[in-house]
Amino acid sequence: MMEKYKRYERLVALLKFFTDNPNKLVNLEQFMDMFNIAKSSASEDIDILEEILEKFDMGKLMTFPGAGGGVKYIPVSSLKSYVPFVKEVCERLKDPSRIIPGGFLYTADLIYSPPIVSKIAEVLVYPFIEKEIDAVVTVETKGIPIALMCARVLNVPLVIVRKDSRVTEGSFVSINYVSGSQRHIRSMSLARRALDKGAKVLLVDDFMKAGGTLKGMTELMEEFDAHVVGAGVMIATEEPREKLIDNYISIFVLKNVEEEKNIVEIEISDWILK
Amino acid sequence: MMEKYKRYERLVALLKFFTDNPNKLVNLEQFMDMFNIAKSSASEDIDILEEILEKFDMGKLMTFPGAGGGVKYIPVSSLKSYVPFVKEVCERLKDPSRIIPGGFLYTADLIYSPPIVSKIAEVLVYPFIEKEIDAVVTVETKGIPIALMCARVLNVPLVIVRKDSRVTEGSFVSINYVSGSQRHIRSMSLARRALDKGAKVLLVDDFMKAGGTLKGMTELMEEFDAHVVGAGVMIATEEPREKLIDNYISIFVLKNVEEEKNIVEIEISDWILK
Repeated sequence: MMEKYKRYERLVALLKFFTDNPNKLVNLEQFMDMFNIAKSSASEDIDILEEILEKFDMGKLMTFPGAGGGVKYIPVSSLKSYVPFVKEVCERLKDPSRIIPGGFLYTADLIYSPPIVSKIAEVLVYPFIEKEIDAVVTVETKGIPIALMCARVLNVPLVIVRKDSRVTEGSFVSINYVSGSQRHIRSMSLARRALDKGAKVLLVDDFMKAGGTLKGMTELMEEFDAHVVGAGVMIATEEPREKLIDNYISIFVLKNVEEEKNIVEIEISDWILK
Repeated sequence: MMEKYKRYERLVALLKFFTDNPNKLVNLEQFMDMFNIAKSSASEDIDILEEILEKFDMGKLMTFPGAGGGVKYIPVSSLKSYVPFVKEVCERLKDPSRIIPGGFLYTADLIYSPPIVSKIAEVLVYPFIEKEIDAVVTVETKGIPIALMCARVLNVPLVIVRKDSRVTEGSFVSINYVSGSQRHIRSMSLARRALDKGAKVLLVDDFMKAGGTLKGMTELMEEFDAHVVGAGVMIATEEPREKLIDNYISIFVLKNVEEEKNIVEIEISDWILK
């Protein structure tokens, strides 16, 4: 005879399962087998877990009825609970010791920190969570951690575009693009087998100025007949106002880096605060 | 008056907190405040959660008594529960369609898949989980997803070494190293501020042949007075048997890729199966 579990035990195990498998449709039968329980108990477990998630603002469960239906865990229930976090990161970004000669900002301590980059990704994918994204696409190197965590929340593969032809993965597609800020011709490459034809993709990067890199990625995606649903970057500069791509969101808008006065002017984007 | 939560609600919220904050010492007072409960209740909650974690093999709680003490969640309780997963990945690695001209293996579908790379990282950090690692260090590009997930389990920052001098993060240290397999001189660089002096680091990469890259990283670490506790790679080749570094572990040992016969010979390392 199989072991019987108490309800509070099942609830904890269920949450662990869902956090390990976000944004994935799971049939109730899987939980019936997992815990050796009837459908009515599994269904009650889900209802109770849903209430707990709501109480603590820890994400939400979406139920899809019918034969092909099931339950899906969405780790981000509302943006509201992320506002204090975003404000804290914004304050940290204002620290003048981040200013690097050339008007850049040092952000590696934030975007390479697992707990921070996890939450940044949760905010960034929020507008795309029900868009049925097939893959998250980024370009090496600094955007990879944010992009991987976005892929993790959406539970889809990450695709990494290389900035040169160091592709050791069989035949690949390369394009040339104009780096928006410096007007240099650069190239980027992706292995043929890295992305299915016709995939719906979300482009992710850590930083965007004119948008040349993201425009290049968009053009590369055309070579794969991929549909770019949108682009998400952690920081976009306010200038130039005319970007080379349209359909992007950013968490922060970098207005100004005054090297001489030691001032970083950066704001949280409206769509997060509203 | 603050809201009171039921025990099963607290247990679920506790697990969510721990999975978001692995390997981090948390004082019981934090839970007393979080749930508005007495120390005895918080302590009971921890005991019950510990039993549930053990029952489902979902990690373990470590309790540290005394004033500076608290509880720490370790996501990996034993390697045993990972063996079926490791075996499955091994079978997938044997698929001859992975063979790329030159005797390479295509692995991007595995190492860029969030659920797979999360588990690979959990296996890879297992021997290091109590070594008080301060940072996980990798070199761009393909090792970054595994390394980030290792950093996530250990709850420490990720440090990404660049393969050239494209460092836009202020002053940096560069070293030249000999790529073991191709005997080319290459360079790698790391921003001065990316790693604290004297840090205890774990090196992580996806693939190792002779170990030239990891040896280069070890030398770069010396420039930061860092202490290399060890190195973990997903796949190490069997040949050459004499590697350029000693203190490494790998999950898989790649014995042979026969391009003409379409055969991949790969095995799981002994330390995982024993």
